[in-house]
Amino acid sequence: MGATFRIEPIARIRSPFDEKFGTPRQAGLVPGSEGTVELLPPYDDPSMLEGLAGFSHIWLTFVFDRCVAQGWRPRVRPPRLGGNAEVGVWASRSPFRPNFLGLSAVRLIAVIDRPRPLLRVSGLDLVDGTPVVDIRPYLPYADVVPDASGGFAPTAPSREQAVRFSPRAIADLETVADAPAYRRLITEVLTLDPRPAYRSGAEPGRVYGMSLSGRNVRWRVDDEGIEIIDITRSANR
Amino acid sequence: MGATFRIEPIARIRSPFDEKFGTPRQAGLVPGSEGTVELLPPYDDPSMLEGLAGFSHIWLTFVFDRCVAQGWRPRVRPPRLGGNAEVGVWASRSPFRPNFLGLSAVRLIAVIDRPRPLLRVSGLDLVDGTPVVDIRPYLPYADVVPDASGGFAPTAPSREQAVRFSPRAIADLETVADAPAYRRLITEVLTLDPRPAYRSGAEPGRVYGMSLSGRNVRWRVDDEGIEIIDITRSANR
Repeated sequence: MGATFRIEPIARIRSPFDEKFGTPRQAGLVPGSEGTVELLPPYDDPSMLEGLAGFSHIWLTFVFDRCVAQGWRPRVRPPRLGGNAEVGVWASRSPFRPNFLGLSAVRLIAVIDRPRPLLRVSGLDLVDGTPVVDIRPYLPYADVVPDASGGFAPTAPSREQAVRFSPRAIADLETVADAPAYRRLITEVLTLDPRPAYRSGAEPGRVYGMSLSGRNVRWRVDDEGIEIIDITRSANR
Repeated sequence: MGATFRIEPIARIRSPFDEKFGTPRQAGLVPGSEGTVELLPPYDDPSMLEGLAGFSHIWLTFVFDRCVAQGWRPRVRPPRLGGNAEVGVWASRSPFRPNFLGLSAVRLIAVIDRPRPLLRVSGLDLVDGTPVVDIRPYLPYADVVPDASGGFAPTAPSREQAVRFSPRAIADLETVADAPAYRRLITEVLTLDPRPAYRSGAEPGRVYGMSLSGRNVRWRVDDEGIEIIDITRSANR
């Protein structure tokens, strides 16, 4: 099996996603999900970032650290197959994989040197606090594979849910610092319907909650789509 | 800095590239570079690969294990900048990076279950024996970024070298099992001119050698391009 390797976080993600539920399943699906990549010492010298600002997108290699304790699984049930059919873990992007490594292509908005080196990015699909173990530029000539075909997930997941805000939720939005951006974020996340696939359609009227940027967003699904019930400060930030 | 993580090889690369010199600098640049990804126990159960054959391309996350002993560098001189200008390591794909992780998108030719689970792939840019730590499908909807722009490496490196074979090299080719494929591989590798950028143009007539699939390929550069001198069995395989 050969030697093992020790890797350590070189950066930490700050994102709106306080928990796994509601976090997009791939990068780029929620363009409004902005956050930062905070470089950690000794990997945070600004000279290590020189030249990066010329690239529009970067790859983040990270560790699914919240999944390590549960262990990896040889077979998984991808949400894209309705959550029922199994495939091998190597055919999936499941976080419950050997070595627990993940990969995301995100848009690079800005490279900030001071007071602490960090990258402003968007299109994040990472839970707040996720440890990053590598950053590299996205190279179109090598990373865009024009003739690639995608097996059981050939296209982006459908954005079929219409999202509307209750009068109460609209009033709650007034208390948020950047209400338009926050409203856009909620809408982009929920049009993708983050409910586990095996539960979709069941339990009409059930109330779901997710913590987004330190606020608890409650919503339910009915025949017309998703309705945001209310938005309140959550305890965990 | 947070916890460190221990990762271990889940597979091993078998490729034509016996050494770093001559190995393509990105995946996909040499379509003729075929090889295998040999799954290692306990990650080699065929059921872990089920569903993968439907994808045309896969990502390999690997460790630049031959570079670990030399340590990482905060700033590097990318070949694409002529080998003179420095950039930060985070703006590069240099192997001399913290955590020594690499990333390659390769074409998946076949998934083989028996006698040992392995993947036949092409477009490899990995040295023979490279340890792989993750395999995942390439998802066009998430991994193709149509509007990405590429900083100091916006397009593929030029293939400006004309490659020709000496009569001696043509005779040597007759002793190779799959001569047309081997000839194609040599040609694709050398049109990219693997010489260190800072040396290109200097030392006319100098003879270079690289070991490819256990054979030593010697070549030189003149005004008309690259001439293969001869192809002999090398000692290291």
